[in-house]
Amino acid sequence: MQPYELTLAGAAAAIRAGELSPVELTESVLGRIGAVEDRLGAYVTLAADSARRSAVRAEREIAAGRHRGPLHGIPFGLKDLIDASGLPTTASSRVGAPHPPATDSAVAARLSAAGAVLLGKTHTHEFGYGLTTPQTRNARDHARIAGGSSGGSAVAVAAGAATFALGTDTGGSIRVPAALNGVVGLKPTYGLLPLHGVTSLSWSLDHVGPLTRTVEDAALVLTALAGHQGPPGTAATTAPTVRSGSPAAPGADLPPPESADLTGLRIGIPRQHYFERVDPGVEASVRAAIDQLRACGAELMDIDIPMARYLQATQWGLMVPEATAAHEQTLRSVPELYGEDVRVLLEAGALVPAGDYLRAQRARALMREAWTELFQQVDVVAAPSVPMAAVRAGQESVEWPDGTVEAVSDAYVRLCAPANITGIPALSLPVGPDGTGLPAGLQLMGRPFDEATVLRVGRAYETASGSVGGPVPVAA
Amino acid sequence: MQPYELTLAGAAAAIRAGELSPVELTESVLGRIGAVEDRLGAYVTLAADSARRSAVRAEREIAAGRHRGPLHGIPFGLKDLIDASGLPTTASSRVGAPHPPATDSAVAARLSAAGAVLLGKTHTHEFGYGLTTPQTRNARDHARIAGGSSGGSAVAVAAGAATFALGTDTGGSIRVPAALNGVVGLKPTYGLLPLHGVTSLSWSLDHVGPLTRTVEDAALVLTALAGHQGPPGTAATTAPTVRSGSPAAPGADLPPPESADLTGLRIGIPRQHYFERVDPGVEASVRAAIDQLRACGAELMDIDIPMARYLQATQWGLMVPEATAAHEQTLRSVPELYGEDVRVLLEAGALVPAGDYLRAQRARALMREAWTELFQQVDVVAAPSVPMAAVRAGQESVEWPDGTVEAVSDAYVRLCAPANITGIPALSLPVGPDGTGLPAGLQLMGRPFDEATVLRVGRAYETASGSVGGPVPVAA
Repeated sequence: MQPYELTLAGAAAAIRAGELSPVELTESVLGRIGAVEDRLGAYVTLAADSARRSAVRAEREIAAGRHRGPLHGIPFGLKDLIDASGLPTTASSRVGAPHPPATDSAVAARLSAAGAVLLGKTHTHEFGYGLTTPQTRNARDHARIAGGSSGGSAVAVAAGAATFALGTDTGGSIRVPAALNGVVGLKPTYGLLPLHGVTSLSWSLDHVGPLTRTVEDAALVLTALAGHQGPPGTAATTAPTVRSGSPAAPGADLPPPESADLTGLRIGIPRQHYFERVDPGVEASVRAAIDQLRACGAELMDIDIPMARYLQATQWGLMVPEATAAHEQTLRSVPELYGEDVRVLLEAGALVPAGDYLRAQRARALMREAWTELFQQVDVVAAPSVPMAAVRAGQESVEWPDGTVEAVSDAYVRLCAPANITGIPALSLPVGPDGTGLPAGLQLMGRPFDEATVLRVGRAYETASGSVGGPVPVAA
Repeated sequence: MQPYELTLAGAAAAIRAGELSPVELTESVLGRIGAVEDRLGAYVTLAADSARRSAVRAEREIAAGRHRGPLHGIPFGLKDLIDASGLPTTASSRVGAPHPPATDSAVAARLSAAGAVLLGKTHTHEFGYGLTTPQTRNARDHARIAGGSSGGSAVAVAAGAATFALGTDTGGSIRVPAALNGVVGLKPTYGLLPLHGVTSLSWSLDHVGPLTRTVEDAALVLTALAGHQGPPGTAATTAPTVRSGSPAAPGADLPPPESADLTGLRIGIPRQHYFERVDPGVEASVRAAIDQLRACGAELMDIDIPMARYLQATQWGLMVPEATAAHEQTLRSVPELYGEDVRVLLEAGALVPAGDYLRAQRARALMREAWTELFQQVDVVAAPSVPMAAVRAGQESVEWPDGTVEAVSDAYVRLCAPANITGIPALSLPVGPDGTGLPAGLQLMGRPFDEATVLRVGRAYETASGSVGGPVPVAA
């Protein structure tokens, strides 16, 4: 096994045991990038030299007995909406800021403090405003979309071109590419992780979170990002966006993989919305995964999704005008620099009346209340992350058996949006591949700031299903 | 002196000492209402019978040794946007809800728990959306406006037709009528007092608060409303909207009137906005009041008001679309039932683009940050509450010496809006009367949840200026 094939947890254990050095791991991942990047297009900017310097520094620190924790010396990719000092934040756009930021985003600073090794910036659908990431190809099938908007991060992780990566998620942008490339993606609770230094798409829906190859890895990254690595009282524990009511260390109390027992846990299976207009192969994979959760001892309960018919309108009603507001000045001065799809959406946002936006805000308030009640019945909601596996590049719509035709972007946002609107944590786990050989995603949603339970259920599924967490073979 | 002439604190002391009974006080105030209400029009709905029953109950409880505190047996008026069970909430509108609410608003419930005696519902400018309250006449000069939107509450308190009253304030609706009638009005910090059961005008700007004849009285009412009357751990201290970081009992630690010493306190005097387009008589009264604060030992500092030129646009940019959203259904079904002025504003709100609303939201976020910095330099900001005393009823605009003509509503909102936008506490104290015999207001603004300091400064001014807090003579 090559070092780039290791999970984060596996690499961290090997580094801690002195069996693997950060330099060796980083060189292996850089070598893998060299081997597959031409075909995948996952990275906007590679920072091989500074990655090597970081790896050397990590190696020296660890050799000197100053091991910072499980992320020390682990190479990662950063979605190119997230600032890292000295590297430009292009947002995969010709409109992107010309000068590299002088300082790290809050999350990049936390990973740096944890000793992680930044490999470079990964492609995003332009400004995060789309579900395909056209510059990047699906890790499993290069003729298919990577998914988006965190497509570069998902593909890099899937292909072994990063041991982990960060993405952002405004309407599914972590979970959709995770599902389409067969990796794990976590959108944490709104407000758990700081967004300082992250280019905003829609500030009331934006989240930042990890993409990894296993649930355990997601928990390790979340713990570092949530700022709980240091002893109590250090700067990390007083991060302003970490709510005092949140668990002390999300993910840190993940049980060992042996204990996949979910006895006593109530998992809600939606009657509405999540299994409507879903590809039969995807549904079969997700239902099989849910059966495994039952086999682990969980009690399955049918539940009603509140206000389901308003979900789509609420998501777009919030996102579209907020995105336009964030782009107001550049949209006026250099509209021609945006991609056609993004420009049209941004222009549409200028036509939204305030009343429609306020209606969406009020619907969101009601939905939050209703989902809070829902989580009195169940501990976790399980559902598909996406209604279909990766479509072919260039495909713009999908036709469902009921005769409806849906835009690809609408379809991919549809099942992820509820967790953006309500702010609840949502984890996407790989399921399948189905008959076509393509993976999809099982989505697990939980109570606000209860990432621990969502990760515990995900870990149980992973253990029960025997998922190994290695990178996928990349076709020639 | 008649009981209706007593301040709240004076009446409470007399009741506690057994020198005055709640029944005697309530009858005196009801008698005063009978004597002046025809001329003033302060009340929409009088509840004399239930007030008498409440007074009898208070009298018996107190006689039995169960004295609940300073509000026990004190008669008050409630602005008719605030629900009280069994009385209709008309919002002084033909659109008002036809059925009386079954339950009290949160603030009415707290006053009821404190043993206060509800006299009735006071007039508001229709739905709180205006600064005149046309049904009500100024307590000092019946040809002039009461101010609004809490005009009925201010006039009732000024005239002795209520010992205290509650109002609401979205763009000055407590402070403006307080200033124009020569009483004290407090808009507390956004979020300090619960708005449950209060008809919303603009939910991100709405506040509820007391109108009284003295600062001490305002502190007593605030303490009851903030839910801190019980011992620690009782329901009152766990009210969901009371922030854990707020002072334990706002107003409760008001120093005695003898200690008007403000040594060490820094008071900011605005260079921009607050003294522009202000009537010379009002300015002279306010500057004289500020001189008295200096005489009490406060240090005066000139300060810059951040983003002053965006204040008006931000206030209206938030308020107008939110108000329309709240009235969406009735505006569509029964537009003809609204008053002309309110209907035009509500219809205008339907034309606001979401981008304008979002721009106002973003400006507010920046203003909040800038005011937070401002309060690192000073403890309190002192300024006029209104740019001019009460105008004549029917007057729609005012011309300033610089040649600009301003709508009366714009003028009255202008100096109050910053505290609504930023959410900081703001107290209006009577100053003057000026040469015309009309009062105006000194506005004191402080840090969020630091009502205690604002009240302390107000009390010092009141003591130094020898304000007595009695009702005004009502002209025949």
